[in-house]
Amino acid sequence: MEFKKPRGTRDFLFEDLEERKYVENTIRKTVENYGFKEIKTPIFEDLELFTTRSGEGIKEELYHFQDKGKRDLALRPEMTASVARLYNNNLQREAKPLKMYYFGSCFRYERPQAGRYRQFWQFGIEVIGGTPIYNEAEIIAMANEVLQKLNIQNYEVAIGHLGIIKGVLNHLDVDAQKQTEIIASIDKEDYEHLKEIMEDLKIDMKNQQIINDIINVNGTRKDLDKIKPELEEIPEAYEAVLELDSILEIIEAYNFTDYTVKLSIARGLDYYTGLVFEVYVPDLGAEKQITGGGTYNLMGLFDSEEVESTGFAFGFDRIMEAYHKQNIQIPEDNTKRVLIVPIKPDFKKEAIQIAQQLRGADIITDIDLKGKKLKKNLSYANTHNINNVVMLGDKEITDNTATLKNMKTGNQVTIPQDELIELILKDDDTQ
Amino acid sequence: MEFKKPRGTRDFLFEDLEERKYVENTIRKTVENYGFKEIKTPIFEDLELFTTRSGEGIKEELYHFQDKGKRDLALRPEMTASVARLYNNNLQREAKPLKMYYFGSCFRYERPQAGRYRQFWQFGIEVIGGTPIYNEAEIIAMANEVLQKLNIQNYEVAIGHLGIIKGVLNHLDVDAQKQTEIIASIDKEDYEHLKEIMEDLKIDMKNQQIINDIINVNGTRKDLDKIKPELEEIPEAYEAVLELDSILEIIEAYNFTDYTVKLSIARGLDYYTGLVFEVYVPDLGAEKQITGGGTYNLMGLFDSEEVESTGFAFGFDRIMEAYHKQNIQIPEDNTKRVLIVPIKPDFKKEAIQIAQQLRGADIITDIDLKGKKLKKNLSYANTHNINNVVMLGDKEITDNTATLKNMKTGNQVTIPQDELIELILKDDDTQ
Repeated sequence: MEFKKPRGTRDFLFEDLEERKYVENTIRKTVENYGFKEIKTPIFEDLELFTTRSGEGIKEELYHFQDKGKRDLALRPEMTASVARLYNNNLQREAKPLKMYYFGSCFRYERPQAGRYRQFWQFGIEVIGGTPIYNEAEIIAMANEVLQKLNIQNYEVAIGHLGIIKGVLNHLDVDAQKQTEIIASIDKEDYEHLKEIMEDLKIDMKNQQIINDIINVNGTRKDLDKIKPELEEIPEAYEAVLELDSILEIIEAYNFTDYTVKLSIARGLDYYTGLVFEVYVPDLGAEKQITGGGTYNLMGLFDSEEVESTGFAFGFDRIMEAYHKQNIQIPEDNTKRVLIVPIKPDFKKEAIQIAQQLRGADIITDIDLKGKKLKKNLSYANTHNINNVVMLGDKEITDNTATLKNMKTGNQVTIPQDELIELILKDDDTQ
Repeated sequence: MEFKKPRGTRDFLFEDLEERKYVENTIRKTVENYGFKEIKTPIFEDLELFTTRSGEGIKEELYHFQDKGKRDLALRPEMTASVARLYNNNLQREAKPLKMYYFGSCFRYERPQAGRYRQFWQFGIEVIGGTPIYNEAEIIAMANEVLQKLNIQNYEVAIGHLGIIKGVLNHLDVDAQKQTEIIASIDKEDYEHLKEIMEDLKIDMKNQQIINDIINVNGTRKDLDKIKPELEEIPEAYEAVLELDSILEIIEAYNFTDYTVKLSIARGLDYYTGLVFEVYVPDLGAEKQITGGGTYNLMGLFDSEEVESTGFAFGFDRIMEAYHKQNIQIPEDNTKRVLIVPIKPDFKKEAIQIAQQLRGADIITDIDLKGKKLKKNLSYANTHNINNVVMLGDKEITDNTATLKNMKTGNQVTIPQDELIELILKDDDTQ
C-alpha cells in the first residue's frame, strides 16, 4: 500500500517546525506580557454551535459527522464560538476583563489552493467584559507589537468602526436584513450594488452622499473630521465617530501612530458591533489579510447576559507565508549538539556516562554505540547540524580525557573529561 | 441556546493548563537532550492507514467521515501509523538512526469513563533505523529519566522480549494465527485459555513447561538465567534471551537498574517483534499503564524497505492523572505580574507608557484604564494572582514616581518610575 497525507493537510518537520515554534513562542510571550492567559478547547464541538453562529450555510465548509449517540459534531472552523461556549459554561463569574488566548488547528472543507489549507492554525485572543475602548486600543497596539517583534515587513493596520454606518442606517430606518445586504456589498467593495440597494430603499441623495463619504474615509485620524459635520444630526453615528476618535487617541498613547483609518472595513460578519480592524501584508497577494478582529456581542447566542467582547486572530499559516515571501530569518540557533564516538566497542560504558553528564547540562547529545567508522560518524554529525564530536580512543580512556572536534572550524583539542561541558558551552566557534 | 462541550472532551484553563504545559515542556526538554526532534502530522489521515495497520475492527473505535471527494478519513487514534506514513513519504533517505518525537491529540470513539477521554494526548518518540539494542536501551533509560524529572512516585518499569516466546512457537511450527491467539491470551493473563490452545495444538508437557517458565519470569535480570538452560536447544528463543540480556546490560550502563524483567508482556499488538516494555503507576488503579512501547517493523505495511523501529508513547492524560493522585506540585511560578492603577483619568497616558516599559522587560502587566475604585483593583489583583500593584496618584505624577504595593506582604514603597523594573524583578516577597 502507498499512503499519502490527506489533500490540503501538511506534515511539519525539523527546521520548518522550528521556524513555526519560534513564531508561536514570540506571539505567546508578547500576549502573555499583556496579561493574556491560555485556554484550550476541544478539536470538535456540537455542529449546532457553528450553525447557530454562522447559519446553516456554513455546513458546506465544515467537516461534520455523527457520534455513536447520533449527535452531530464538527471539527472547529474557528475558535471564537468555542471561547464563547466555554465562557458560558464556566467563566461567567470570573473577574472582568477576562483576557484569554488560544493557539490551535482549525478545519475548513474547501478546495485546497495556494496558502489555504484544510487544517490550518489560528493564534487568537479574546477580551470579555471590561470597557471596550480600552480593550480595543490595547489589542491593536499589541497586534502591532507582535508584528514588530516577528519582523514582518510592509504591513498595514487598517481600523474602522461599524457603529458609524450602522448609526446612519438605523437613523434611516433600514431594517436588519437590508443592513446586512448593504454591509455585505461594502465588504465586497461592490459599490454598484450598494447604489442599487440605496435607490431601492429610496435613500435620498444627501444621505447616499453621507454613506459614500463614510466608506471613502481611508487615511489618517484627521480624516474623521471631514465626516463629523454631516453626522452631527445623526447622534448614534456621531457618537460612534467620537468613540473611534477616542480609541485612536488611546492607541497613540501606546506609541502606535502608523495605522490607517478605513471606514469601509466590514469584516463580512453580522456580529461585529463597533470597532473592526484588519492587518494586510500586500506581499501576500490575494491572501494578504493576516489578522482581523473587532468588538462583538456573541453571548446573545446563548440567551445569557450580554457582555461585549473584543478579539482577533492571526492566521498563523499566513504569517509563515509572509516569513517565506519576505525571507525573514529566525535568530540563529545557538543550541549545542554533540555526538559521542567511542572508538572501540569496550568504551561504550564510558561513552554512555559522558553522554548522560552532557544531557544533564542540557547539551543535546547523541552516541554512536553501533561502532560506525569515524568518517560515517562525522558525516552523520554534518547532516544533523551537530556542532561538536567527542572522540574516545585508547589514550583518552587511559588518561580520562576526551578529544573534542568542532565541526565548523575542524579544530580539535584533547582535554580532561570533566572540562568537556564547560568548553562545549562556551564554544563560540572561535576556538 | 445552551451549548455544552461534546461528551468525553475537556476544556483546559489557566492553572490546569499551566500544569500540563510544565509536564509537556519537561518531557520535551528531556527527549530533546537525547537528540530527538519534533514532527507534526495532520489530525486526520486516510481511514485505510489505520485499518491496514490494525484491521477493519478498529473502525468501531474511530471517528471517521468522508470528504467532498468521497475519501474516507479518520481522526487519528494514535500517531505511530502517521509517523510510518511520513517516513515513507519523505524521510527514507535521511541518515539513520532517525530520532523523532511528537505531541498531539488523538481520538477514540468509546464510551467515556474515568481517565479515558474521546480526545486525549500522546507524547511519543520513534527511532527508525540504527541498531535496535542500542536504541531500545537508550529510550528505556530516557523514559525513566522523564519520569524521574516529573517526580512521578512508585512507578514500575517492566521489560520483556517477544522474540523469546515467538522463538519457541516457531520452533514448534505453530502458525501465525495460533501464535496471535496464544500471545493474546498471555496479554490478557488468561492462562486457562492458554492451556487449552496448547492442548489443542498437542504441544507436549515439556514444551508447555518451557512456555510457562518463560511467561513466569517476573523479577531481575538474574532470573533470565533460570530459563537459559531449557532454551539452549531452541536457537531463535535462546538468541532472543541473550539479546534481552545485552539490552539490560546497556540499560544498566545508563545507571538505571531498578526495572523488572517481565516476559509475559505481550502488548496486545501483532506488530511488535522484539523488545517490549511498559510502565505502570499502581496508584492509578485499572488505568495504571502510563507508557508502553517496543520494537516493531511497521514499514512492511507500505511495501517499502524493511527498517526496524523502536518507539513508545506516554499517555499524557494518565501522567496528569498521576500528578493529581500523587499530589505532585509543579515548581512555584516566579513570574512577576503587575497591575497599574492610574488614580485619575488624566494619568492614563503615563500608565500606558509605564505598562509598555514593564512589558518590554517581560513583566506581565495589566492596566486599569476604566477608573475602577482602588479596592476593586486590589481585589482584581488578588483573584488574578497579580503580585504587584503600581499606583499613580497626583504626587507620583508630579514627582515622576510610582507607588509599588506588594500584594503578598501588603508593603508599599514610593520610588522613581525608572527604578520600578529593577525593584519588581528582584522582589522576592521579603521587601
